[in-house]
Amino acid sequence: MVDILHRIGVVSSPDEVYAALTTVDGLAAWWTQDTDGEGEVGGVLRFRFPVGGFDMKVLEARPGEFVLWQVVEGPAEWVGTRVRFDLKHEDGYTIVLFRHEGWSEPVEFMYHCSTKWATFLMSLKRLLETGKGEPAPNDVQISNWH
Amino acid sequence: MVDILHRIGVVSSPDEVYAALTTVDGLAAWWTQDTDGEGEVGGVLRFRFPVGGFDMKVLEARPGEFVLWQVVEGPAEWVGTRVRFDLKHEDGYTIVLFRHEGWSEPVEFMYHCSTKWATFLMSLKRLLETGKGEPAPNDVQISNWH
Repeated sequence: MVDILHRIGVVSSPDEVYAALTTVDGLAAWWTQDTDGEGEVGGVLRFRFPVGGFDMKVLEARPGEFVLWQVVEGPAEWVGTRVRFDLKHEDGYTIVLFRHEGWSEPVEFMYHCSTKWATFLMSLKRLLETGKGEPAPNDVQISNWH
Repeated sequence: MVDILHRIGVVSSPDEVYAALTTVDGLAAWWTQDTDGEGEVGGVLRFRFPVGGFDMKVLEARPGEFVLWQVVEGPAEWVGTRVRFDLKHEDGYTIVLFRHEGWSEPVEFMYHCSTKWATFLMSLKRLLETGKGEPAPNDVQISNWH
C-alpha cells in the first residue's frame, strides 16, 4: 500500500477550511465546479470533471479537525482508497495534512494524481486567502493527462 | 520505506528537460538560484535555500532519459534518500516521472516536501515553456514552513 501525502498552510481558520471540505459550495470552489451530494458523515459527495469523476462516502468528520472520505465510485485505482484531511492551527495558519491512502501499486496514474492533488490543495489555499480558487474545468493543467 | 511521486508534462524536448536537470544554470532557474557543483555522473550538486539545503551526488544520468541523485548532505530525513527523474516523450510533451524515494517514515516534513516538489516541478515546466521559472528564494510559498 502506498500513499500520496501533502501539507499546506492556509491563512484562515480551521472552521473555514473545514467548511470548504464539507459543503458542496466550498468543494465546488476549489476542486471541481461539478460537485453535488452531502458532505456530512454518512453522505456521498459526487465530483465530476470534464472526463470522469469520483464518488466519496464521508466516513468521519470532526468540525475544525478532520475529514475522512472513502472512494466508492471512480477509476479502478481509486475505488476503496481513502482521502483524509487533518487540520491544526499553527503560527497563524491552518495546516492541512492531506493523505490519499491505500493505493495498491504506485502506477503512473498515482504519480499524476499526486501532482494534481498538490495543485488542487493550492487552489483550496487560494480560495480561502483570496476568495477565488481554481476548480475544474478551470484547473491548472500539469500535463497531457490534464 | 515511502516515496514521493509526481508526474508533469512539459511542452519541450527530452534533451531540454535533461539540460535543466543536469546543468547548474538549468537547476538554478527552477529549483534554487543558489546552486553550484557538477551535474554529471560522479559529480556533487549543492543546492542552498534561505534556510538549509541539500548536496546531491549524481549516481546515474542518461541524456534525454533519466537522472538519479543520492542525497549526501542535508536534513537527516533526506540523507541517503534518492531523487529520480525519468523522461519520456508522449503526445508532444516530455513527461517527467519524479520519485523521491527511500524515506524511512512518513513524517510531517515528508508531507511538506511532497507539496514543495510539486510546486518546483511546476516551476521546471514554466521555465521550459515560458523561459521563466520560480526558483528559491522566489519560490511559491505553501505554508508557515515556506
